[in-house]
Amino acid sequence: MASIKLPDGSIRELPDGSTVLQLAESIGKRLAQAAIVGKVNGKLVDVSYPLTGSHEVSIITDRDADGLYVMRHSTAHVLAQALRHLYGAKLQYTIGPVIDSGFFYDFEFPTGVTISADDLPKIEAEMQKIIAADYKFSREEVEPAKAKELLHAESQRFKDEIIDELAAAGEKSVSIYRQGDFTDLCRGPHIPSTGRIKAFKLLSTAGAYWRGDSDREQLTRIYGTAFFDKKDLEAHQKQIEEAKKRDHRVLGPQLGLYAIDDAVGQGLVLWKPKGAIVRQELQNFIGEHLRRQGYSQVFTPHIGRLGLYKTSGHYPYYRESQFPPLVDRELIEALSKEGCSCGELSNRMEKGEVDGYLLKPMNCPMHIKIYSSEQRSYRDLPIRLAEFGTVYRWEKSGELGGMTRVRGFTQDDAHLFCTEEQIPAEIAGCLELVKIVLGTLGMNEYRVRVGLRDPDSAKYVGSADQWDKAEKACKDAAATLGVPFTTEPGEAAFYGPKIDFVIKDVIGREWQLGTVQVDYQLPQRFDLSYTGSDNQPHRPVMIHRAPFGSMERFIGVLIEHFAGAFPLWLAPVQVAVLNVSEKSQAYAAEVAAKLKTAGIRAEADLGGDKIGAKIRLASMAKTPYMLVIGEKEAAEGKVAVRHRTEGDKGVVETGAFVEEIRAAVAARK
Amino acid sequence: MASIKLPDGSIRELPDGSTVLQLAESIGKRLAQAAIVGKVNGKLVDVSYPLTGSHEVSIITDRDADGLYVMRHSTAHVLAQALRHLYGAKLQYTIGPVIDSGFFYDFEFPTGVTISADDLPKIEAEMQKIIAADYKFSREEVEPAKAKELLHAESQRFKDEIIDELAAAGEKSVSIYRQGDFTDLCRGPHIPSTGRIKAFKLLSTAGAYWRGDSDREQLTRIYGTAFFDKKDLEAHQKQIEEAKKRDHRVLGPQLGLYAIDDAVGQGLVLWKPKGAIVRQELQNFIGEHLRRQGYSQVFTPHIGRLGLYKTSGHYPYYRESQFPPLVDRELIEALSKEGCSCGELSNRMEKGEVDGYLLKPMNCPMHIKIYSSEQRSYRDLPIRLAEFGTVYRWEKSGELGGMTRVRGFTQDDAHLFCTEEQIPAEIAGCLELVKIVLGTLGMNEYRVRVGLRDPDSAKYVGSADQWDKAEKACKDAAATLGVPFTTEPGEAAFYGPKIDFVIKDVIGREWQLGTVQVDYQLPQRFDLSYTGSDNQPHRPVMIHRAPFGSMERFIGVLIEHFAGAFPLWLAPVQVAVLNVSEKSQAYAAEVAAKLKTAGIRAEADLGGDKIGAKIRLASMAKTPYMLVIGEKEAAEGKVAVRHRTEGDKGVVETGAFVEEIRAAVAARK
Repeated sequence: MASIKLPDGSIRELPDGSTVLQLAESIGKRLAQAAIVGKVNGKLVDVSYPLTGSHEVSIITDRDADGLYVMRHSTAHVLAQALRHLYGAKLQYTIGPVIDSGFFYDFEFPTGVTISADDLPKIEAEMQKIIAADYKFSREEVEPAKAKELLHAESQRFKDEIIDELAAAGEKSVSIYRQGDFTDLCRGPHIPSTGRIKAFKLLSTAGAYWRGDSDREQLTRIYGTAFFDKKDLEAHQKQIEEAKKRDHRVLGPQLGLYAIDDAVGQGLVLWKPKGAIVRQELQNFIGEHLRRQGYSQVFTPHIGRLGLYKTSGHYPYYRESQFPPLVDRELIEALSKEGCSCGELSNRMEKGEVDGYLLKPMNCPMHIKIYSSEQRSYRDLPIRLAEFGTVYRWEKSGELGGMTRVRGFTQDDAHLFCTEEQIPAEIAGCLELVKIVLGTLGMNEYRVRVGLRDPDSAKYVGSADQWDKAEKACKDAAATLGVPFTTEPGEAAFYGPKIDFVIKDVIGREWQLGTVQVDYQLPQRFDLSYTGSDNQPHRPVMIHRAPFGSMERFIGVLIEHFAGAFPLWLAPVQVAVLNVSEKSQAYAAEVAAKLKTAGIRAEADLGGDKIGAKIRLASMAKTPYMLVIGEKEAAEGKVAVRHRTEGDKGVVETGAFVEEIRAAVAARK
Repeated sequence: MASIKLPDGSIRELPDGSTVLQLAESIGKRLAQAAIVGKVNGKLVDVSYPLTGSHEVSIITDRDADGLYVMRHSTAHVLAQALRHLYGAKLQYTIGPVIDSGFFYDFEFPTGVTISADDLPKIEAEMQKIIAADYKFSREEVEPAKAKELLHAESQRFKDEIIDELAAAGEKSVSIYRQGDFTDLCRGPHIPSTGRIKAFKLLSTAGAYWRGDSDREQLTRIYGTAFFDKKDLEAHQKQIEEAKKRDHRVLGPQLGLYAIDDAVGQGLVLWKPKGAIVRQELQNFIGEHLRRQGYSQVFTPHIGRLGLYKTSGHYPYYRESQFPPLVDRELIEALSKEGCSCGELSNRMEKGEVDGYLLKPMNCPMHIKIYSSEQRSYRDLPIRLAEFGTVYRWEKSGELGGMTRVRGFTQDDAHLFCTEEQIPAEIAGCLELVKIVLGTLGMNEYRVRVGLRDPDSAKYVGSADQWDKAEKACKDAAATLGVPFTTEPGEAAFYGPKIDFVIKDVIGREWQLGTVQVDYQLPQRFDLSYTGSDNQPHRPVMIHRAPFGSMERFIGVLIEHFAGAFPLWLAPVQVAVLNVSEKSQAYAAEVAAKLKTAGIRAEADLGGDKIGAKIRLASMAKTPYMLVIGEKEAAEGKVAVRHRTEGDKGVVETGAFVEEIRAAVAARK
């Protein structure tokens, strides 16, 4: 008999070889109908999977994230099947993985066939037929040679290549999935039958290289998504539409917030005056709270000697994600005379035979050097060094985009040097800051992920006791936030546990922001110490924290969250002063000057355009307040107030308006 | 007859061949006695120089800067003569130029002889003998071969080397100077006789290489200075003493303002918390005035593509003063496979065949790219883009020191894009800012130098009319400042006239700070334009301005100016709260908290040390106010106020003190 432990802890006995589906049926008919796959000892399997012996099993239904994942993968197979029907046996299919919110599949179409968005409806119609036919997904384990034979009927050379590699790696069998007339090499698992796909949509096409290698075949990628419910698909499509309107890569340049110029370099952000205002206001706001929390600001250089980053372990370990080092000019010339090649130079730098400078990928070593520039005592701790520090990392050009995927970014960085005992209070302080900032921005939907160590692994720096305490501190701090949090074993860095922040924007998308990380390793690598109350040297603990990640990314997210309509205190222009005619021009100029004197960012549009055009322009710029000034207002010393979203707010005394706005800005409402 | 035009415009006729001294005698006896050298058609000559034909001549006396310059040079010769007496004919002398506030002379001493500061009094005594002997300086023009012969008696191989080079360069004659038993190769001119040296001092010794080349002979450099008046020498020595006490390279690290760490890199400043406060306060202050003046803040990356700096002309033209470029990692590897050497790589980069990134030596190209990221109209001008932008330049390691000679520095930079007509107002605005900032810092002694074009040269960009207007704008603005200003023809950059600021610190030393420069060239190189009221494209003019140069340099100067005792508003710690005993500890902590809440930078020293020790510590930290809190003060809710320099200021209500300090800080008193 198979002995099955269910998620509620109960044990169920079934004859050996019973399938997951039979297990579900034994529990209840509705569960069996809803079953998508099973999870046996933590691994997803088809519902046809036979159970023998003792196992922990759960039934994954269309309500589980795993169920959605599997169904999207199966939809990719249906896509391949539909294309096979439409374009015949010469169509070569490669791989079709599940991604963030859907799936894609890469194909090589027969010579002469090119696919565009226009072809998608036709393909969708064919997929719909396959779904209506409700083909069963069946799995077969075969020897590699046999798999090639089965697929050879289809002459699938990309699949052959994969099978050859699996065989070379010593795999004795591979799995084949079939639905209807379609066969594919696949690990699985899959949904029971194609009819389980309730709502799907093909989204776009793109070019891709086989295995991401530009020396290999060029393929056509088709993106799609699928849901168990039509409403979910509609909501998703609406979100995509809404996201397009809010795209910071469009809004940012359009609102004059930033520019990226190829002559300066890809992924390098030029903060234009309006964007710089948003950044500076945000930095001022965060800075105020840093001061209240006892942080000290520092400034450090943007380059550091290679040796510094060797000590820290950032070089050459992460060198692929860094700009290459700078070498002393005279040294280059001397080495060149010796006939040293560029590649050799880079090898010699790695070995430490040649020194150079690294464009800093991290601020930590600099802050560590500030810590160690003085003798420290336990009375000095915690020392909290904060810097809006710009760091540079090498991202492939294909991965760059707007402000969220860049090569240079300014972290809201800080490093806390403290004793073991101070860790809980310091972590709590970090989370407090996030709460205040996100609360002020009205972003109250966020969650945290606490990355813990993998209990089975021995790769971690620090003692088990240290880890227990630090992990507890992270969990306790996360619990007090009053927002959802998950603990994720195995997700800690090897040098300490961490907390990641994930915020949800107004259209429901999640954005991973910054992090708080405990670090037992760098204090050791840099041999940091403080004198304890026992007069003996002790090792401090470091906490790295950049709760908003980087100013670039955070503001990119804010642009999308607010669709460019920043709250009053962040708005680059807070009040637009618009005169109706030349007769009210002088008074309008006076009002604008009054606002500016009060520290309000006012812009006057005193030109000869019609008032409607001026309002339209200010609205497009998402200016919170517009003051419409006609002869009557000028005569009475008043302004007609119009709000960006609330519309007409009536005519008020100019002085009263100035005071109201000043108070609202000060309160960051 | 020689026809001599004197500085007052009068013409004096003398027999051809009359000397400068005879000319002086013909004017007056006292002038002849005071004469040091003559200036004939702008060139300095000995008083024995014979006048034939028509010339403009002035008599240089001990009241002229040129007179001091020549006398110091002559003192260097006296030094060489004294050493010749003391160390014999094997002593090799090389060159002995005049420097900023004195002179040096480099020697190779006979084998086995080493010279230290201890030897200086002995040398001074010998020099005094030579001065007392009042040897005449006499000049002789001889053929190079003859000069070698004359000096061969002395077997001076360094002099031989110089003579050989002069001969190779086609010089038909060289000049020899003699005083008493000493002969030296020298262009001159010199004072009439050694007795004219009234006060001198040897200051220090140092190592140096012949011709600054580390592959050549190592020499001993002896530094000295000389004056026409003992009082001037004494004042100078006092200034040196005072400067030593104020040395920012000592005070800066001592007061915890900054650190330089070899592991990070020479010339790269780590701004520690206290230094960062000073910098941030200064930036806030300057920033406030920038906003008032209608500047817009921007942020730009610290690297830019090589092509950007080729367009601007900064690369490869200034490449020796830049960090070498960064090359794309994949590109390095690809080139290395081709067998491309490092030197070849650098050549190919210069030719533009290989792209890379430059650590930015200047912010201008970035600001230009912000300007050109939008279509601009005459209505948008002037556009004033400001950034505390950190730039990097390669200085030789031997030239680095503290915060004033660095490899990375943060300019108080801005670029103004304006029309021709707007230049005067914009320049005036720049000078206004300097006046406000220096005035607030109590640094009211400064002067400006207006660099004009050389009327004889044709190397300048821009029309004569443009230059006339821009030069006038610079001179007019300088004149309104109410501080001394000089115009210096030929000192303009080739792209436009400029204004430099030179401030005098409390001990009378002058520091060159920043600059305002008009630029006709970069707008052309980057093809900038704006649409004029005529609807046609026009070229804007650029003004570069960084009136304080860099935050590093400016704060380095401020540390020395204030001897580390910053004014209240800049002081890293404004108030030290010191309790007398445990009984007043709680109240002292309360006072410190109250101060902090009011935004005052207070630090409490509540430990068990005696109050005298606490006061000493706070005084050493140059904290402006110390609050001494005993039981009586605690009971009465008062504080005993002690000022850094003014001493005891009596006992006052705590609330009143907080208010007073807050108001003083806000007023930047």
